Amino acid sequence: MSGAPLFGKVVVFGVGLIGGSFALALKAARRAGEVVGFGRTLGSLNQALQLGIVDRAGFNIGQEVSNADLVLIATPVGRTAEIMARVAPCLGAQTVVTDAGSTKEDVVAAARLHFGKRIGQFVPAHPIAGAENSGALAARVELYRHKQVVLTPLAENSQESIARVRAAWEACGAVIRELTASEHDRIFAAVSHLPHLLSFALVHELARRENRELLFDFAASGFRDFTRIAASHPEMWRDICLANRLALLDELDCYRAQLDELRAALQAGDGARLEEIFDVARTARRAWGESRAKG
Amino acid sequence: MSGAPLFGKVVVFGVGLIGGSFALALKAARRAGEVVGFGRTLGSLNQALQLGIVDRAGFNIGQEVSNADLVLIATPVGRTAEIMARVAPCLGAQTVVTDAGSTKEDVVAAARLHFGKRIGQFVPAHPIAGAENSGALAARVELYRHKQVVLTPLAENSQESIARVRAAWEACGAVIRELTASEHDRIFAAVSHLPHLLSFALVHELARRENRELLFDFAASGFRDFTRIAASHPEMWRDICLANRLALLDELDCYRAQLDELRAALQAGDGARLEEIFDVARTARRAWGESRAKG
Repeated sequence: MSGAPLFGKVVVFGVGLIGGSFALALKAARRAGEVVGFGRTLGSLNQALQLGIVDRAGFNIGQEVSNADLVLIATPVGRTAEIMARVAPCLGAQTVVTDAGSTKEDVVAAARLHFGKRIGQFVPAHPIAGAENSGALAARVELYRHKQVVLTPLAENSQESIARVRAAWEACGAVIRELTASEHDRIFAAVSHLPHLLSFALVHELARRENRELLFDFAASGFRDFTRIAASHPEMWRDICLANRLALLDELDCYRAQLDELRAALQAGDGARLEEIFDVARTARRAWGESRAKG
Repeated sequence: MSGAPLFGKVVVFGVGLIGGSFALALKAARRAGEVVGFGRTLGSLNQALQLGIVDRAGFNIGQEVSNADLVLIATPVGRTAEIMARVAPCLGAQTVVTDAGSTKEDVVAAARLHFGKRIGQFVPAHPIAGAENSGALAARVELYRHKQVVLTPLAENSQESIARVRAAWEACGAVIRELTASEHDRIFAAVSHLPHLLSFALVHELARRENRELLFDFAASGFRDFTRIAASHPEMWRDICLANRLALLDELDCYRAQLDELRAALQAGDGARLEEIFDVARTARRAWGESRAKG
């Protein structure tokens, strides 16, 4: 069986970092017969062709999707619903659709709306891999290796559909996890969406000051790491924040309460309380880092 | 002149990451005849001896300092005043004292109190280099190479004293900058002390939740970088926060206002405003990263 493609035809919407790396990895694992890409611009499609990410650029969605085995929607979250609306009427009986969105409850709601009775053919997924760079040039075959991909399967999904999506991501080298969409969104509001918001906030705050050049001139490695994610894609993060608005507002409010607590300790000169907070944080962060190193 | 020591005898208080790396670099550059170390515990002193960081462990401060050419105080900020009180009465006429504290106004105030008429012999400094690890084992000869060291000279410092401290840090490979103590503290509240506080706050907030293991399990590279500085030394950061309390409170309040603004945009579903903030942040962060890469 080695070398036999698992998916005769794969259609990827969005040939940037996420979709492009998925296509490269499936092709490298010889699990895709043909990869057809759709992109927002001719420029990105041409780039994906030149980089060998896709075999062919698609133009007619209905024609390409109807005989596809696997469809990945890897456009920015804000455009997912539009793609679903165009894909849903054209699905073949054998076609399984998945996505790569960073939020899941909104994606599932849109999928139910657009796929209707065919909702069982859509298996929601979120690969936990990214970079501050985006676009086809940033795609790389190793992106998903040893990274987690969270599936949030629906009651309507057949075991076979779930297994096919799982197999595709496993072929990319990923480790598969399962959560409900709601669990997923609350967890990622806390460990991903909030940190991005906080990092954007710090750089924006400093960037609008008159003495910003002096400030940035003295920023060092702590600032560099803390703000790396502030170089992330603004449109993508706008969409994520809006899609996961309620969970993110909850997390932001918990964090603001935490800052209030720290501010009170600082105001009062309460060194013991500050040290206690810092110590709990350091212990947890070190344990996390060590578990990662082992994992 | 090559190979001739610039400082016949160097005394270092605190033989951990900062003091230890300074000693290693001066010795590697053959700019120190003898390095004598004082430490808080026998264990750390023994470690420093075994690692070749110091030539000798000191026990009698008066005896060691009176004929020293250069004294570095590299203890946690909270212990600096105590060391100054013990060093000041014993200074030789040729002895220049410097420090490595992350805050400068409090250090200068303590120095004025303890050095009195000999204040001209104290040249305040802050090497902009660190790591989340501390202790003698973390010390390394390259720590200061191409890093900035900020001097905040006093009106009472002779040009010669300033030049000697400058030469010592340059021998470690550092790039020297000058600021007033007040400028220094306001700048570092913004680009260093606040980010540390924010990073500690996020990890502490998550670490006290019942589902912390699940949360940490899905944390990825964005979280990793954002929270790297939350593994910093709790006692050191308690001291820095208290020493620079007023400037840090100002910065914290600016940041809280920034979060209020982001919260309002999120609450209102104002995607245009969110994207604008993220875009300003990304542009500034990328420009900063690129200027670093060139520098």
